[in-house]
Amino acid sequence: MSTRPFNFSAGPAVLPEAVLQQAAAEMLNWHGSGMGVMEMSHRGKEFIHIYEQAEADFRELMAIPSEFKILFMQGGGLAENAIVPLNLSRGLAADFVVTGGWSQKSAQEAGKYCQARVAASNQANGHTSLPAPSSWRLNADAQYVHICSNETIHGLEFHELPDLQALGCRAPLVIDFSSHVASRPVDWSKVGLAFAGAQKNLGPAGVTLVVVREDLLGHALDICPSAFDYRLVAQHASMYNTPPTFGIYIAGLTFQWLKQQTEVTAEGVALHGVAAMQARNVAKAELFYNYLDRSSVFESRVAPSARSRMNVPFFLKPELEAQRGPALYESLLSGAKAAGLLQLKGHKSLGGLRASLYNAMPLAGVQALIAYLQAFEKTGL
Amino acid sequence: MSTRPFNFSAGPAVLPEAVLQQAAAEMLNWHGSGMGVMEMSHRGKEFIHIYEQAEADFRELMAIPSEFKILFMQGGGLAENAIVPLNLSRGLAADFVVTGGWSQKSAQEAGKYCQARVAASNQANGHTSLPAPSSWRLNADAQYVHICSNETIHGLEFHELPDLQALGCRAPLVIDFSSHVASRPVDWSKVGLAFAGAQKNLGPAGVTLVVVREDLLGHALDICPSAFDYRLVAQHASMYNTPPTFGIYIAGLTFQWLKQQTEVTAEGVALHGVAAMQARNVAKAELFYNYLDRSSVFESRVAPSARSRMNVPFFLKPELEAQRGPALYESLLSGAKAAGLLQLKGHKSLGGLRASLYNAMPLAGVQALIAYLQAFEKTGL
Repeated sequence: MSTRPFNFSAGPAVLPEAVLQQAAAEMLNWHGSGMGVMEMSHRGKEFIHIYEQAEADFRELMAIPSEFKILFMQGGGLAENAIVPLNLSRGLAADFVVTGGWSQKSAQEAGKYCQARVAASNQANGHTSLPAPSSWRLNADAQYVHICSNETIHGLEFHELPDLQALGCRAPLVIDFSSHVASRPVDWSKVGLAFAGAQKNLGPAGVTLVVVREDLLGHALDICPSAFDYRLVAQHASMYNTPPTFGIYIAGLTFQWLKQQTEVTAEGVALHGVAAMQARNVAKAELFYNYLDRSSVFESRVAPSARSRMNVPFFLKPELEAQRGPALYESLLSGAKAAGLLQLKGHKSLGGLRASLYNAMPLAGVQALIAYLQAFEKTGL
Repeated sequence: MSTRPFNFSAGPAVLPEAVLQQAAAEMLNWHGSGMGVMEMSHRGKEFIHIYEQAEADFRELMAIPSEFKILFMQGGGLAENAIVPLNLSRGLAADFVVTGGWSQKSAQEAGKYCQARVAASNQANGHTSLPAPSSWRLNADAQYVHICSNETIHGLEFHELPDLQALGCRAPLVIDFSSHVASRPVDWSKVGLAFAGAQKNLGPAGVTLVVVREDLLGHALDICPSAFDYRLVAQHASMYNTPPTFGIYIAGLTFQWLKQQTEVTAEGVALHGVAAMQARNVAKAELFYNYLDRSSVFESRVAPSARSRMNVPFFLKPELEAQRGPALYESLLSGAKAAGLLQLKGHKSLGGLRASLYNAMPLAGVQALIAYLQAFEKTGL
């Protein structure tokens, strides 16, 4: 068993130990090729094999239908905030559901390329609950509807994707699923395009996965940089420009690790892959939120129905925070580090603490965190 | 000593063995932090340290003056072909010196954002020599002048950067120095902006280094994606979006390796860092071109004054190539692989063979390649 500390970083984030060990073992010589993966031409048969395996494994894991292309790109979610409207907006309009820091940024950036309209927002309640899809003011001329299906900073998650067709909207749904990709299955019948920076649940920073329905290719604006034109990237199997080869390799190892994961439910049903991860992630999140809800010192400030299973911002109760917040948070963080619980600092825009419970975080990490917080409640105040 | 094969890939390319070994050793636990570099928040003190060290080392190695910013970006040279005009052209005009595949692509892409004019071209001679700067038709309204200072595909290199001021041109010089960065010193007084994909001489694919004079920041077009606005990237120390953290770390290890390299000249002068690499690269290239020039079977097709020290496309003599080219090239490549000489296939647009002699390729690799080709001349025909 591992003796590594538990790393709660929101991203770049903890990776499966088996993935890191394999990457270290193969660093100078991949499968007897005499080359490390970083040293291979992206056009050579060795890397083509790695690429095709990674793509096929991701498709299988996420049950992605054949009418979707899988692209491995660069620039992360922030670049996609521009790349999506450059490819999909046709310079016209798009609707945004603003539910936290990331969807806010997406709407703002899209405004450079089209009319970016806020169809719904939870800003009035401080990004603590999700506006019901029935309340969204969707527009008939929107070329797409954007949501961030898991808000990393504010800790909100759409536990079910909206069904735009049922809402009378024919535009494709775009989801930024960076921080919960591969943590649960996706209903692709509801999705037109999904993108994810790899650095949460899939691998290192510098790889962006884009899953895009084929009919959405080929509509890029003239001003779209060629390297970010989905049609060109798809036509060249993500090798229009030199892809981030090592990052794709690490993501591929993570996909293989995910495929091997199994869980057996209380009813004796065996779950595999992403379904197994979902069961584990539900268990981890329930354990932690239940602890927070019973605590007299700590709290979640997100409405229960909207709470993210991946990113849990949590805080001292308001009165305690007002009195001694800065000193207590500092003491909490330094004590946590000493106890082998790393990177729990909250995002700078919210303060407080944040525990990210990605796929590679075991239940034991959540248990250790709760034990630490319980001890702090008794002796740290 | 190493028993690894010699890897002549044009990029992604061979890395120093010491760099790969250190990366493997630190994969699960960087400097006692309990985290691998891939798992660290880019905002944490551990990664900030890695980043700042890498930037300082690159500045020292390349003697980059303080009025230049160093940015670590994503997308490679192909993305920079759009990002440079998005930031520098002001939507007006830029001049391009077309000397091979890469500068050709740069001019073409820039045409999306400004009037991209060809100030000189060597297309008429098949990209085999460099047009003298005195012959360039530079325009007074050009916002910048672009050259590819080393053409990876066609194997041409500017052994001296043009002095635009001496040519009566006040526009900044932009150099794509992807495939010879850190192989020799740069005279920054002649340069406004330089960019390089890391995957040749510096590290893994997925990191782009941009060195930009401060007065060129802040002029991006409104349609420039925020993630690629040099001013924003500089203001946020390359962390406006999540940077490719592991790639930056590997580049940083390569910078440290480069700083340790020394060579003593025939006159007894000790050279360090990039100057030492230059001496080695001159020696490797001279050895190989001298062999080719004396061979009755193989040849370089580039004018001697324009020959790249980094990328050497070479071919069978025309008559032999016309008679038996495909079969002989196939035989050459499979024999080379068996002899531990990897990735010698020429670029698909030129055919033939190509040996890339980057910093991490030792003289012994060139000697082994020559010995193999000499044996082939005797027994392989």
